[in-house]
Amino acid sequence: MADLLITGGTVITVDEEERIFDPGAVAIRGEEILYVGPAGGELPANWKPRQIIKAEDKLVLPGLVNSHTHAAMVLFRGYGDDLALQEWLENRIWPLESRLSAEAVYWGTLLAIGEMLLAGITAFADMYFYPDAIAQAVAEAGIRAVIAPGIIGINPDAAASLREAISFCQEWNGAARGRITTMLGPHAPYTCPPEYLAQSLAAARDLDVGIHIHLAETEGEVEDIKARYGMSPVAYLCQQDLSGVHILAAHCVHLEQADIHLLAKNNIHVVHNPGSNLKLASGIAPLPRLLEAGVSVALGTDGAASNNNLDILEESRLAALIHKGYTGQPTVIPAAEALKMATVNGAAALGLKDTCGCLRAGMKADLILVNRHQPHLYPRFNPLSALIYSARSSDVDTVIINGKIVVEKGELRTLDRERIMHMVEEHAKRLLQ
Amino acid sequence: MADLLITGGTVITVDEEERIFDPGAVAIRGEEILYVGPAGGELPANWKPRQIIKAEDKLVLPGLVNSHTHAAMVLFRGYGDDLALQEWLENRIWPLESRLSAEAVYWGTLLAIGEMLLAGITAFADMYFYPDAIAQAVAEAGIRAVIAPGIIGINPDAAASLREAISFCQEWNGAARGRITTMLGPHAPYTCPPEYLAQSLAAARDLDVGIHIHLAETEGEVEDIKARYGMSPVAYLCQQDLSGVHILAAHCVHLEQADIHLLAKNNIHVVHNPGSNLKLASGIAPLPRLLEAGVSVALGTDGAASNNNLDILEESRLAALIHKGYTGQPTVIPAAEALKMATVNGAAALGLKDTCGCLRAGMKADLILVNRHQPHLYPRFNPLSALIYSARSSDVDTVIINGKIVVEKGELRTLDRERIMHMVEEHAKRLLQ
Repeated sequence: MADLLITGGTVITVDEEERIFDPGAVAIRGEEILYVGPAGGELPANWKPRQIIKAEDKLVLPGLVNSHTHAAMVLFRGYGDDLALQEWLENRIWPLESRLSAEAVYWGTLLAIGEMLLAGITAFADMYFYPDAIAQAVAEAGIRAVIAPGIIGINPDAAASLREAISFCQEWNGAARGRITTMLGPHAPYTCPPEYLAQSLAAARDLDVGIHIHLAETEGEVEDIKARYGMSPVAYLCQQDLSGVHILAAHCVHLEQADIHLLAKNNIHVVHNPGSNLKLASGIAPLPRLLEAGVSVALGTDGAASNNNLDILEESRLAALIHKGYTGQPTVIPAAEALKMATVNGAAALGLKDTCGCLRAGMKADLILVNRHQPHLYPRFNPLSALIYSARSSDVDTVIINGKIVVEKGELRTLDRERIMHMVEEHAKRLLQ
Repeated sequence: MADLLITGGTVITVDEEERIFDPGAVAIRGEEILYVGPAGGELPANWKPRQIIKAEDKLVLPGLVNSHTHAAMVLFRGYGDDLALQEWLENRIWPLESRLSAEAVYWGTLLAIGEMLLAGITAFADMYFYPDAIAQAVAEAGIRAVIAPGIIGINPDAAASLREAISFCQEWNGAARGRITTMLGPHAPYTCPPEYLAQSLAAARDLDVGIHIHLAETEGEVEDIKARYGMSPVAYLCQQDLSGVHILAAHCVHLEQADIHLLAKNNIHVVHNPGSNLKLASGIAPLPRLLEAGVSVALGTDGAASNNNLDILEESRLAALIHKGYTGQPTVIPAAEALKMATVNGAAALGLKDTCGCLRAGMKADLILVNRHQPHLYPRFNPLSALIYSARSSDVDTVIINGKIVVEKGELRTLDRERIMHMVEEHAKRLLQ
């Protein structure tokens, strides 16, 4: 953790005023941002940087946030594609998941984190099994994460799972100098009966943590919940006492207008997963209508088994493109909106809106430098457009989290890339045996 | 042009048998592929490679084909985004295009080629103005291209444009050791009246070149052509005498079933441009129905002003994803189909099906190596899935065209990247003055 000055780049703040300083500067003291503004602006008289990063030809912006994933599912990347949903789940994913171990989840999560760091992702919301292994990987890698143990109310061990998840939150919430926070992860309306959901919400309220849930992902789910409970999945969730509980709801693809109002009224943070929704043919979420209703929408990759990568820049482009084509309106989801979804809305979805997601003095120093000096980013008209419509995640040059440089010149500094790739290959082979 | 042996990689042939050799080898003699098969397979006794490329951890596949673009429009990249179509055209693109010069087109095309080479594109179909400048750039850069001068039948200089385009074809068809071929580019049904289209087709037949045309891109075009001529844009084209003329039709978004039959019956090569169609909100082409009807469909980026990059791997992923989500069928456009569209169907669309597009002895050596030894491509289950769903164009390591290495370890070998970026920035600034 050095005191850093990043100067000379195009600084995109993604704060409320959506300021761009070109050339701009960001000063970092310890874990925090000390100054954001024009290059050459006045810094505190008593402060001297220990390292200066010259960022000419770079875009400097908040780190990207992957607001819904199952990181360790990178273990299954490319194992089942182009299949019908039930065949994919029943014959590919579930058999492999039943063989998972804490060790496999640890290595899978490390690979996922390596991939995410290289793609400029500084924080992610995870929902999966073996949460201690996930937390250990996050602590070592230097990334920020909100970890939710996935719990399933219709399993025989449902009660024990909830108890273990509560213990996990008690142990890990706020760990790794605050980089790790926790949520409870009741999987979905169709796997969590009303009482289980109520218990989960009550526990979350007691623990002062949020809830991470899948919601209205497929048409089948909507039909199922309507048949069982006579209401939509969103209404099913919102009939619960949600007071004082932060809710992160992934997908929200199949929504009636009444559902959209409920999401807005209850301040539910929606996570849009365009790549996964397309690949699994779940459908196309009504993103423009959600935003119009004032819902805060972030972006997620979902697991790599249904994507098949963990690339939020790609998701932001998908979000900016598909809704234009689908609605026939070329003005919906402009570049600035897509960038907000990938950064500040992501931080809000993770319950970290006062911690990270934008460049402002006093926030934790989670930011990235994107190399603009490349053929596919010339000429240099508009930095937001360049980022959302032209750049690729491999253009990310430097990643800083909590004031610490974790990626430099496109190379991981906190993780042993070769060892992790090797271990993941070994574990994936073992799962297939 | 060295005699090359590429050995040890995963060789994806994309030929009719869709063979994968792992580990495989490709031998290149002069401009041509001499051998494709297992690594260690028997090579001609009298042949010795002058250079051996060890391709462990690489995918080896045919070069990607960008089957519809306006390369020099990179000059306008990021200058107008998130705008309604008419505002974009009338207030942004057309005013800049009216100020273009041959020199600006030359530098713009060089930048576009540099970007495409780095993204693994070995051949492209261009339609634009100042075709001599385009041809000069192609000749220098070492890429393969089919250049169509854009001609517009409703302009005052329509007849002269056609004459000049014919001269261009006469001068350049087959140039640069066959790397340059030509087509005529009557712009679209709504800019080319029937007689002009007939003259263009007759000239193409005489010259033995193809036609590159925009077709059924927007709903507005369909309404316009129906109002003027009482038929769809596809029917409007197909009422002409198409005998003996190769047709490359870009877009084909708004089609009735009768149009799809006409495209199939007339062996028209359709180029799907998913990124541009989404960004301009033109719509979503009925790709699964086109393929079902037996139409050969390739992929294009369109110009970078409406995309905003020239990345066929990204287009192949978009094609594989959006039609699943749009039709609700997760099995449509599987990875192998998307790869065919990006390679062999592209070569066919360019009129080069006997020249390139797959790895087979006797074809010109246009191929790429993709570096698979990266976090986002692990574990290594399925090479086709890795390529289409997980890889990014920056994973392209080596590019070979006509037997010559033009990109090595991700660096351009035939072009001066820095000078080109500088010149494009200068010309773009000048256009804006």
